[in-house]
Amino acid sequence: MSNQQNDFSKWYIDTIQKADLMDYTPVRGCIAFKPDGYEIWEHIQDEMNKRFKETGHRNAYFPMLIPESFFEKEKDHIEGFSPELPWVTEAAGEKLEERLALRPTSETMIGHLYSDWIKSYRDLPVLINQWANVFRWEKKTLPFIRTSEFLWQEGHTAHVDEEEARAETMQMLNIYKEVVEELLAIPVYDGQKTPSERFAGAVDTYSIEAMMKDGKAVQAGTSHYLGTKFAEAFDIKYLTKENRHEFVHTTSWGTSTRLIGSVIMVHGDEQGLVLPPRVAPTQVVLIPVGPWKKNPAIMEKLDAIFKELKAKGIRVRLDDSDQSPGYKFNEWELKGVPVRVELGPRDLENDQALMKARDADEKVAVDLAKLVESIEQELQTMQTRLLEKARAFRAEHSHTHIDTLDELKKHIGDSSDKGEIPGWILAGWCGDDDCEEHVKEETKFTTRNIPFNPPAEKSACINCGNDAKHTVWFARAY
Amino acid sequence: MSNQQNDFSKWYIDTIQKADLMDYTPVRGCIAFKPDGYEIWEHIQDEMNKRFKETGHRNAYFPMLIPESFFEKEKDHIEGFSPELPWVTEAAGEKLEERLALRPTSETMIGHLYSDWIKSYRDLPVLINQWANVFRWEKKTLPFIRTSEFLWQEGHTAHVDEEEARAETMQMLNIYKEVVEELLAIPVYDGQKTPSERFAGAVDTYSIEAMMKDGKAVQAGTSHYLGTKFAEAFDIKYLTKENRHEFVHTTSWGTSTRLIGSVIMVHGDEQGLVLPPRVAPTQVVLIPVGPWKKNPAIMEKLDAIFKELKAKGIRVRLDDSDQSPGYKFNEWELKGVPVRVELGPRDLENDQALMKARDADEKVAVDLAKLVESIEQELQTMQTRLLEKARAFRAEHSHTHIDTLDELKKHIGDSSDKGEIPGWILAGWCGDDDCEEHVKEETKFTTRNIPFNPPAEKSACINCGNDAKHTVWFARAY
Repeated sequence: MSNQQNDFSKWYIDTIQKADLMDYTPVRGCIAFKPDGYEIWEHIQDEMNKRFKETGHRNAYFPMLIPESFFEKEKDHIEGFSPELPWVTEAAGEKLEERLALRPTSETMIGHLYSDWIKSYRDLPVLINQWANVFRWEKKTLPFIRTSEFLWQEGHTAHVDEEEARAETMQMLNIYKEVVEELLAIPVYDGQKTPSERFAGAVDTYSIEAMMKDGKAVQAGTSHYLGTKFAEAFDIKYLTKENRHEFVHTTSWGTSTRLIGSVIMVHGDEQGLVLPPRVAPTQVVLIPVGPWKKNPAIMEKLDAIFKELKAKGIRVRLDDSDQSPGYKFNEWELKGVPVRVELGPRDLENDQALMKARDADEKVAVDLAKLVESIEQELQTMQTRLLEKARAFRAEHSHTHIDTLDELKKHIGDSSDKGEIPGWILAGWCGDDDCEEHVKEETKFTTRNIPFNPPAEKSACINCGNDAKHTVWFARAY
Repeated sequence: MSNQQNDFSKWYIDTIQKADLMDYTPVRGCIAFKPDGYEIWEHIQDEMNKRFKETGHRNAYFPMLIPESFFEKEKDHIEGFSPELPWVTEAAGEKLEERLALRPTSETMIGHLYSDWIKSYRDLPVLINQWANVFRWEKKTLPFIRTSEFLWQEGHTAHVDEEEARAETMQMLNIYKEVVEELLAIPVYDGQKTPSERFAGAVDTYSIEAMMKDGKAVQAGTSHYLGTKFAEAFDIKYLTKENRHEFVHTTSWGTSTRLIGSVIMVHGDEQGLVLPPRVAPTQVVLIPVGPWKKNPAIMEKLDAIFKELKAKGIRVRLDDSDQSPGYKFNEWELKGVPVRVELGPRDLENDQALMKARDADEKVAVDLAKLVESIEQELQTMQTRLLEKARAFRAEHSHTHIDTLDELKKHIGDSSDKGEIPGWILAGWCGDDDCEEHVKEETKFTTRNIPFNPPAEKSACINCGNDAKHTVWFARAY
């Protein structure tokens, strides 16, 4: 295992491979999601689907191939995405008349169809989500975080007016924040993206941003108010109650399999993964120790505990393989299993088992009579504890007293000298693209978002010193 | 609505469009799955996932793009699939060095990876399933049944020996049979495909075959024993307990969104869809009738019923729109909602509601006190009734007394004269490809499968009259 502090990237890649989450493939930038990696995604899907459906959304599926001419209908959109598109040019032995892009996102295809589906105010709102694979032929890739093909959900909604569409944009951002914080135990800042970081074709883009253990930021979800831009490009009009034809206001919002990578980078440690109980493929592992093979009562007891946990819906495994206990402890720690239970002959004599939470230093002895209850409780407290730890880490590496570019450069230099991560900085910004760009060029710090609830308000632009229009998170980002 | 008997294809396409299940798109042969169509798929997914997981399978995700060289490693496989492949030849502004196919199925990519993942008998069996979009650039397409892009699941397993792999092949075929019969209320014949109808690269292919209302067959699921063919092509070997290197034996098995089309074609009628309760997006619709707007007690009662049904997990809608009751009845019948409940002032006075099952001729009056219970019961009995009706239909159109090609031609001619469907015929076959091909050329009847439990045994080949090796279902097929 590589050292997390010295070479975070290597630690990350080693860890996800050893923990069997993914594998590389011969197709550039495309990974295979192995069962333990994919199951984290399934738990995310379940939680998102539940909340999408509770708020009136339904799933649908749209074609993956998008005609080239569709992209050209929205100018910003084609500019933003065309450098990254893979193209189908031949099929069934014939050259196609028009190239077909592998979707990077589906606003254009869906815009085209919505213009048919939406005729009257009675058809609105349209609240549809899609789970799909998408493609962005990136130059630099990193498993889960940035891959040529990835999995995501993309919501696409249409509304009678701006007010309703903006409310939807915020509702979905809130759902993302809740799921990422509650399920993945990752604290996020919600806020608005600056114009230069907006989605190609959006009027306003909002994001949730998470801090990884190397201090870099991951944009963990985005929600866009698209105004009438796509409605105008694809002629999506409806008849109002007053018999007028109006353009709909649309939104789109997405989260992707980069959330899997984020969980690893937020919670993992030198021993490997640390998975929040709610998304862990295995929540509890039971391991017999000592001379257990000569003592059938051990496995009988573990079998009984296994069944009891299973009946409660807990994802439990019993590791009765021939490996040594020490090997098993390492193996299941590497895989990030939240709770480990050990039972040996002496434990059984004392009517107890040893329980260890993945993020705890010590094992604790638990009465067998209270074991199942204790495990359930530990799974809950660990879920909360991981979120609190991540919040504390974020607070420690969020800097609110850096007010000039020189101070930022000094901070970066000092951090580097001390072998510390530079983290995020909260700074003022005058609103000028050039100031944003200059900070980026000089420090690789980019604007993450303009947080809705910043821990402080800043008054001067970090670059030019003029009045700050916004208080912004700056950070290096994935 | 077109007439089902006179022009089944037109009836089918009209019905699925009017019932809002799908829409055509500008990409050839690619449809959009609208929410009511997609939700049928979600119910299928849930039921399949449950059974896959119970039998030890886990989901994973593999890259969609497959290098051309991979296909060339298994001779039969490339021959079978190459005529239907779309190719990515350019990405991010550059021509690719090697063309990448949009997967038609994933044996090759998965074979390549399994050769890395599988080293020892300890790694076996590998039991993985994938939910994904796949592509087959078909000349003739039909929504849900045959589209250029479709959704499916594909299981890919690897085993120590033939016995275990064959047991897996059968286990999965059985799961398909159970899900299709129990969830979709579609009776199927399970059996083995003839060599000419085998999956490209399989040793043996097994299928479940379903009869549509026009008498044509749909192959509703397939399960393949692949022997060591892909293991040899991709060098998937494992070290046995005895320290020898052996090829694994692999299987693959799949079902797709064509099941959505099959549900429509098996149960639909002149009024539109008839959906089995277990897959219906809306199971119960509540409709106020009579002068209900002047009588708030009606909506109060319906609200209470709605809540009670919802609490029981029943998918219920309350249609309080301004349309007339007659319009609503038609609309919800077209959409195939299993149970309709009407409540008007006079019903309320009599402490009753009217309930109508989608496939029943008459409404029945039900005591309000027993309404929820009656609805629950009706949903269950309708599920069983639809399966029984489909079984009876299939029995009526399965012919076991046609023994020669001349008799088959006469049967087809007679059926056509009487405006009847020719259905399926059970006939003997000597095992010769040429005999199978000749029947096809003369009648368009192809072998569906060699059923495990044929309703009769046949002794002479329908084409040549020699001894029959197999008793086979012949039918026209989608």
